[in-house]
Amino acid sequence: MTPSRRLAALGLELPAPIGTSFGYRPATRFRDLVFLAGMLPKLPGDVLLVTGTIGAEVSPDQAREAARLCALQALAWLADAAGGLDKVRKVLQLTAYLAVTPGFRGMSEIVDAASAVFEAVFAPDGGHSRSVVGVLELPRNGPILIDAVACLEV
Amino acid sequence: MTPSRRLAALGLELPAPIGTSFGYRPATRFRDLVFLAGMLPKLPGDVLLVTGTIGAEVSPDQAREAARLCALQALAWLADAAGGLDKVRKVLQLTAYLAVTPGFRGMSEIVDAASAVFEAVFAPDGGHSRSVVGVLELPRNGPILIDAVACLEV
Amino acid sequence: MTPSRRLAALGLELPAPIGTSFGYRPATRFRDLVFLAGMLPKLPGDVLLVTGTIGAEVSPDQAREAARLCALQALAWLADAAGGLDKVRKVLQLTAYLAVTPGFRGMSEIVDAASAVFEAVFAPDGGHSRSVVGVLELPRNGPILIDAVACLEV
Repeated sequence: MTPSRRLAALGLELPAPIGTSFGYRPATRFRDLVFLAGMLPKLPGDVLLVTGTIGAEVSPDQAREAARLCALQALAWLADAAGGLDKVRKVLQLTAYLAVTPGFRGMSEIVDAASAVFEAVFAPDGGHSRSVVGVLELPRNGPILIDAVACLEV
Repeated sequence: MTPSRRLAALGLELPAPIGTSFGYRPATRFRDLVFLAGMLPKLPGDVLLVTGTIGAEVSPDQAREAARLCALQALAWLADAAGGLDKVRKVLQLTAYLAVTPGFRGMSEIVDAASAVFEAVFAPDGGHSRSVVGVLELPRNGPILIDAVACLEV
Repeated sequence: MTPSRRLAALGLELPAPIGTSFGYRPATRFRDLVFLAGMLPKLPGDVLLVTGTIGAEVSPDQAREAARLCALQALAWLADAAGGLDKVRKVLQLTAYLAVTPGFRGMSEIVDAASAVFEAVFAPDGGHSRSVVGVLELPRNGPILIDAVACLEV
């Protein structure tokens, strides 16, 4: 099984990578490492699935769906940087920033929706380290931003 | 002197690494690099030393003790990933996220309690880069979360 | 054209690297990678250009100038770690933390001021990944903190 077949087995499709109008690159490769920029939950047309703060305008369920979209954009940009998803070995570390209301609980359950995608696509050794942080504001009023370091097949 | 002897010379003991019930790994190795997940101030039994916000429920002194515990968990997981603490060369970069009240000052003094452990254990070249950030919420209502990138002896 | 000539062509001068009184190093090298600590907008004498929260005491224009100063300190420390700016190949990933008021919009435009420096100095392939995050507090009441991973010429 390859990552692209495992993605299909999840019933998911690799989306087109959606770029940015700001002064950075979504993915930057150095040898066998790929540094991924913070991914927002983007839909085709560069629209965010949802905006606002988790715990206020954004429900935990919406936030989980947003986390999944961030993971799919991450996969799309990893595939772009690697020359195909099947050349990506795995995610090593991710950092998930969530815009939350003070006192919000349940951030890890939300980010698990993204981690589950990476774990399944890069199985059987798809485990990765991660940090989850509740912040005040994210670009474009997004509810979640996920960056990552990944490695290529060697 | 080895890292494990330097740790003992500090009067500290390497704790057992304490895992997570969420969908990530505490440490992920890629060749000579280890990416550490965000470490919480965990005591045996997976209990947090203290919860809440620094500047409110959590005093600076408690936060320093929590930072030290995060550093010890980091060492425990580095040892686990490397096959022994003495195979770890040093921490290269750490990021410390502190849940603080608005206007809280003194974050760097708190994180110095963690940096001092790494500096001493990996002496004489135990220096590392770091970022310190005051955030709104952390997993499990923790007051501090510390992640890191480390390298192995080569 | 070399990085140092491109910097001069921008009308900018490499500042002296300004250290820290806290227990970390501004830059830590591992082979061809350099991990940069969070950079504050420091002026000679270790004075911050501006302090406070963006959207309150700090205007977007002041924040852009602060972002540029962070980038110059980053270049100074990269040069120090590499043995000269011209031995630095490029920035791979940066994370920009901004202390903002709730609801502040326009963070990416501010961080573009830092990214533009890196992009120009390491042209024609100066693109880098990045994450932008709005947080509650930063060390020394700084309005912006930027860390990075960079690679050396190989």
